[in-house]
Amino acid sequence: MDYDSYFSQALEQVKSEGRYRVFADISRRRGEFPRAWHHVQGGQREVTVWCSNDYLGMGQNPAVVKAMEKALHDVGAGSGGTRNISGTNHYHTLLESELAGLHGKEAALLFTSGYISNEATLSTLAKVLPGVTIVSDELNHASMIAGIRHGGGPKKIFKHNDVAHLDAVLSALDPDAPKIVAFESVYSMDGDIAPLHDICDVAQKHGAMTYLDEVHAVGMYGDTGGGVSERDQAAERIDIIEGTLAKAFGIMGGYITGNENIIDVVRSFAPSFIFTTSLSPVLAAGALASVRYLKQNQELRDCHQERAARLKTLLGEAGLPVMPSVSHIVPVFVGNAALCKQISDELLYDHGIYVQPINYPTVPRGTERLRFTPTPLHSDQMMAQLVQALDKVWIKYQLERAA
Amino acid sequence: MDYDSYFSQALEQVKSEGRYRVFADISRRRGEFPRAWHHVQGGQREVTVWCSNDYLGMGQNPAVVKAMEKALHDVGAGSGGTRNISGTNHYHTLLESELAGLHGKEAALLFTSGYISNEATLSTLAKVLPGVTIVSDELNHASMIAGIRHGGGPKKIFKHNDVAHLDAVLSALDPDAPKIVAFESVYSMDGDIAPLHDICDVAQKHGAMTYLDEVHAVGMYGDTGGGVSERDQAAERIDIIEGTLAKAFGIMGGYITGNENIIDVVRSFAPSFIFTTSLSPVLAAGALASVRYLKQNQELRDCHQERAARLKTLLGEAGLPVMPSVSHIVPVFVGNAALCKQISDELLYDHGIYVQPINYPTVPRGTERLRFTPTPLHSDQMMAQLVQALDKVWIKYQLERAA
Repeated sequence: MDYDSYFSQALEQVKSEGRYRVFADISRRRGEFPRAWHHVQGGQREVTVWCSNDYLGMGQNPAVVKAMEKALHDVGAGSGGTRNISGTNHYHTLLESELAGLHGKEAALLFTSGYISNEATLSTLAKVLPGVTIVSDELNHASMIAGIRHGGGPKKIFKHNDVAHLDAVLSALDPDAPKIVAFESVYSMDGDIAPLHDICDVAQKHGAMTYLDEVHAVGMYGDTGGGVSERDQAAERIDIIEGTLAKAFGIMGGYITGNENIIDVVRSFAPSFIFTTSLSPVLAAGALASVRYLKQNQELRDCHQERAARLKTLLGEAGLPVMPSVSHIVPVFVGNAALCKQISDELLYDHGIYVQPINYPTVPRGTERLRFTPTPLHSDQMMAQLVQALDKVWIKYQLERAA
Repeated sequence: MDYDSYFSQALEQVKSEGRYRVFADISRRRGEFPRAWHHVQGGQREVTVWCSNDYLGMGQNPAVVKAMEKALHDVGAGSGGTRNISGTNHYHTLLESELAGLHGKEAALLFTSGYISNEATLSTLAKVLPGVTIVSDELNHASMIAGIRHGGGPKKIFKHNDVAHLDAVLSALDPDAPKIVAFESVYSMDGDIAPLHDICDVAQKHGAMTYLDEVHAVGMYGDTGGGVSERDQAAERIDIIEGTLAKAFGIMGGYITGNENIIDVVRSFAPSFIFTTSLSPVLAAGALASVRYLKQNQELRDCHQERAARLKTLLGEAGLPVMPSVSHIVPVFVGNAALCKQISDELLYDHGIYVQPINYPTVPRGTERLRFTPTPLHSDQMMAQLVQALDKVWIKYQLERAA
């Protein structure tokens, strides 16, 4: 049996579609973000990172670094076990309490990633609620899709952010059977935001539970960083709010919040939670400091929004096809996987601008794009350089300009 | 729809079986492991941890702590993205190279947990190899079972470490179809070790690939910590070796190693890898230091084995029912979930000894046990205290003694 030929074929297929991923080897530099070293054959070059999900630069925040250093010195590197077998550290319980408070919920549960938060929770709910149908926005993240699939129960898709269609889908289901409406607040590849109250209205009308992924919103929206559900005063209408520690909070890991019984059920039944070594206490300590810092520092959120708006304006003025976005995410349309990769390489190697091509399966084929994430630390000068470089590339490849 | 009643019922079921998990809130203390603080209502008490998977105490090793501190200062807290979108840090590439070298393989791939290493790899192989059957040891870890299930292909179970049965199972399959034999080296709840060469012989005879989980062996077996496959000089016969950074290496995260194409396929196709923020560079730096340290410090492995042998002897001499184990794991049989929990609580609160009850679903019902993991840092005095406390508890509850 020639196994290798199968592997080669699979890889050739990806390469022939122009969507083979080459990871850029980067060294972030604390205190100088978004500047970083790009490691290449024979040396390293300085670049500006334009595609980080460390949206607020909290990965280098002094309060965060200090808290991690203290935890490292006090308790050491790892937790030493699963949450149940010696791996619950006091930082975990403090952080869970903090996160529950952030979203106005009774309880929280930590995971090693946002991916696992979604996978564990949705698959467990599907198993514990007999006959539940999960009604899922068509653009939901891969991790929510994985959770729904692993749960093994029925799933229905509603058109992206389309409340009328959600209503129609729910109306077609048995009114007495359990239902969960699963959706996100900020959709990270387009930058649009779900109408939380409208979705909750429809869910409530049909007696459905609500599950909201706020990974691209926590820390960045709401007066204390509780996400769009805080900004829109909708948190209490959502049964489960899921978030990440790896984006605006600058560390890694994920979590869910909800009432005590829901959290306890996921804690007690989800294999991907039960059988995983818990988050390093060093990370938990950093996340705790980060959540607390962002509760109190609205100016960082204000600056973040100002920077995103500024970049959108500059791109628009240069006639570059910035896609509509009501959030901090700034996508620029390309529409071709191979070209998207080529442009990205040219920006990196010729202009010192690091932005990844966003290709299938992250976005649908034909909607390939560059996705910029300006942070409070991206200066006017960096933006001017970026727009100038894009302009050159757009001319060179005769790319379509904005209407 | 009264969702809460379903959640309450599910929890009541677990509680009625005596297997509801209460996490012990612990603060490890760097430099004093295995001593720790146990946080309880109104204060904290000193305990000795006897159930950590930080098998060699590397979570407090000065070389590890120093490397993490340096990375924290140099690059900051988090990676800022998925591996593909700005989240590949230079520590990741160095660590992957080190791990590939540790197992004598061409390439390696990091994950945020061992659970995800198994889940991502086995599910991806099932999708890329048309018609593959995964032949799995009946005691394989939950994460391997999850990977096989998520792959959606056919699965066959062979009796635990039973090479004749494995041969029979493989013989019944289409000789021309792809097959993967998936197994572990050290089985963590019993402490027995798979006959690697015998399994490889059978797999080779039937043209099957081999997938080996070494999470309870890496760092601890083999002259450089390459696991049982290094100790038995079998590594080159295994196609994929999977390991963890969260146990003997003392940090968190998981990995696979194998030839370039296999690793590239998992890297390119596994959603749970692609869509997850990468390991914090702080953790990767610590793991790199830990792997390198254990390559060179055989005395820690020797001491570990001596401590485990010593504890088995002491337990045996006291007539306590230590279960057969050829590894560093020391399980003591109880056989009843509620009792197992009660004994564990009593050891914790009355004797300052922290060992979790191991109940279903971690082990089969009726085989509940206490599972001790002596490290090089567990002293003779700690062992004497442990045996004395167990003796008291065994008398109090009139538990069965060893034959």
